[in-house]
Amino acid sequence: MANKKVGEFDLIERYFKRPARQSVLGVGDDCALIQPTPGTQLAISSDMLVQGRHFFADVDPCTLGHKALAVNLSDLAACGAKPLAFTLALALPHVDEIWLAAFSKGLFALADAHGCELIGGDTTQGPLNICITVFGEVPVVNGRTQALLRSGAKTGDDLYVSGTLGDARLALDVLRGTVSLPPEVFAQARARLETPTPRVALGLALRGVASAAIDVSDGLLGDLGHVLIASGVGAVIDTQIATQLIAARAYLTRANGQFDTPNGPQLPRQTDLQTCLAYVLAGGDDYELAFTASPGQRDAVQAAARASNTPVTRIGQIETSPGLRLMDAQGHAVANTFKSFDHFA
Amino acid sequence: MANKKVGEFDLIERYFKRPARQSVLGVGDDCALIQPTPGTQLAISSDMLVQGRHFFADVDPCTLGHKALAVNLSDLAACGAKPLAFTLALALPHVDEIWLAAFSKGLFALADAHGCELIGGDTTQGPLNICITVFGEVPVVNGRTQALLRSGAKTGDDLYVSGTLGDARLALDVLRGTVSLPPEVFAQARARLETPTPRVALGLALRGVASAAIDVSDGLLGDLGHVLIASGVGAVIDTQIATQLIAARAYLTRANGQFDTPNGPQLPRQTDLQTCLAYVLAGGDDYELAFTASPGQRDAVQAAARASNTPVTRIGQIETSPGLRLMDAQGHAVANTFKSFDHFA
Repeated sequence: MANKKVGEFDLIERYFKRPARQSVLGVGDDCALIQPTPGTQLAISSDMLVQGRHFFADVDPCTLGHKALAVNLSDLAACGAKPLAFTLALALPHVDEIWLAAFSKGLFALADAHGCELIGGDTTQGPLNICITVFGEVPVVNGRTQALLRSGAKTGDDLYVSGTLGDARLALDVLRGTVSLPPEVFAQARARLETPTPRVALGLALRGVASAAIDVSDGLLGDLGHVLIASGVGAVIDTQIATQLIAARAYLTRANGQFDTPNGPQLPRQTDLQTCLAYVLAGGDDYELAFTASPGQRDAVQAAARASNTPVTRIGQIETSPGLRLMDAQGHAVANTFKSFDHFA
Repeated sequence: MANKKVGEFDLIERYFKRPARQSVLGVGDDCALIQPTPGTQLAISSDMLVQGRHFFADVDPCTLGHKALAVNLSDLAACGAKPLAFTLALALPHVDEIWLAAFSKGLFALADAHGCELIGGDTTQGPLNICITVFGEVPVVNGRTQALLRSGAKTGDDLYVSGTLGDARLALDVLRGTVSLPPEVFAQARARLETPTPRVALGLALRGVASAAIDVSDGLLGDLGHVLIASGVGAVIDTQIATQLIAARAYLTRANGQFDTPNGPQLPRQTDLQTCLAYVLAGGDDYELAFTASPGQRDAVQAAARASNTPVTRIGQIETSPGLRLMDAQGHAVANTFKSFDHFA
């Protein structure tokens, strides 16, 4: 093969074909065939990653392979679905075997960690574009789906988020050159940007516990907005708690006055706490879960957090009045000047 | 809305959100949920279309919407799967509402004709790229899939193709300026290129009749090669019959000596019949079915063709000896100088 031009079929064969396991028929026919477990539904999500929009041209292809699948697994997590399989459609400017080897390594490492099998796809020449469609299983009990939906939040429910928020966007700002950080702070934030952890285990543990869930990909405020609209409710967020959600907070507040904050209107410089809040509420690329649960489920939520080894923080409450309100520790309203990320805004 | 910038969520809402029907939960949550009919498998296929590679920048967006779904439905057809639903991931350089309205019109017209529902997806900014993942159902009877696979061809089986082959590539050559045709001949060929008919009805009718099937997207020789390898067999094709499969044949042979043939090495000019043969065997973009069936199924194949209102032609036979051979009407070997289409070759 050494002197042979690498064609489409070789690419699939060499980098992406693996023996089929749980699915009935994997890569290599016109369609893949999946037979869902009786009594389950299939949860399906598609995400497309475009160079220059979702990642830089010089990103490590191994982390890119991880992230391309992670953002899709995050959607399964938000539905409480167990990962099953995925398809990969890949447009490449040219065949770069070093790139492909690293990309597939990162991709399969995460896939294997979640027992999620590549069952089909497409490769073509074009501007670098990665489109993954992921499949998971959700039980149906007595005719009712156990999927976590956006539409189930109820007045009085607690509002939670998992993990940390804002560090991915902080790293992005460093890469864009609008912010500078010490190397060790940057390294931690960059890992959040480039190798996010899809909260699959938490999503599974929250089945029957959470009333609604979404994954935070475009910024908490924007994504939470979808839950509020779908559920016909509003919410209040405690900004005192929220500011503590960014892992780099200790540095950001310690560096009081010396930290170069971003200049965009969505990140106004007032205080360092305000900067933290901007990252937390409107950062994007977090891939944490935002979810709601009735106050009667507080112990169950903590148990789910422990079982999945995922920190969760209660940051607010669902209210009847539509819209989202911010409040400080003293219960005073905080102006909401933060703007969510929109791929076309 | 008139003065509002159209963002990602508006795009989905305005052009692609429709009430969910057969699927349990459509566009608008982290995942779509599908509950396959008990006793069925889900057939899944993904295809990505890239500007400049699969279509020209100035293509009519309505026909592009049709084709983007058609090439995916063609994969379901090749498996004998009944279309159910699809996801759409779309990268657009900018929001062009006229383009989007036309694209979604063409897309949904074909989707509705096949009862195939859009259940989710993604929109982002980037070089124009359309990635569709399609879902269909295939029955499982006594633990055996009824899907038409590539691996079922057996020595002695007849080899068939549906419809016509080569006209799409002929139209492409006209658009590229390497061939000229009279307007009415071009219009017919162009329809084959831009609005191919996925052979879904034929695929369904061939369940239990055909022994193997594939859709012809990269040229008959290349695609048939996948069937032969997967089935561990070879085949012979009657070139006399094959030359008749291009709809423009009457014109191509009538215009003897005046027809400007393409210059590429894969389309050598020897005779007009040879030109027809090159288009038929190595054209690509046909979206017809190539399939095999035991000679005992000839009546059943004809019945399937009638039931699905799709012409089929018997063009050869499966043989034990691996590889693909071409033969003329007198039974003499014809040199195979044709090359299949490869997105990276």
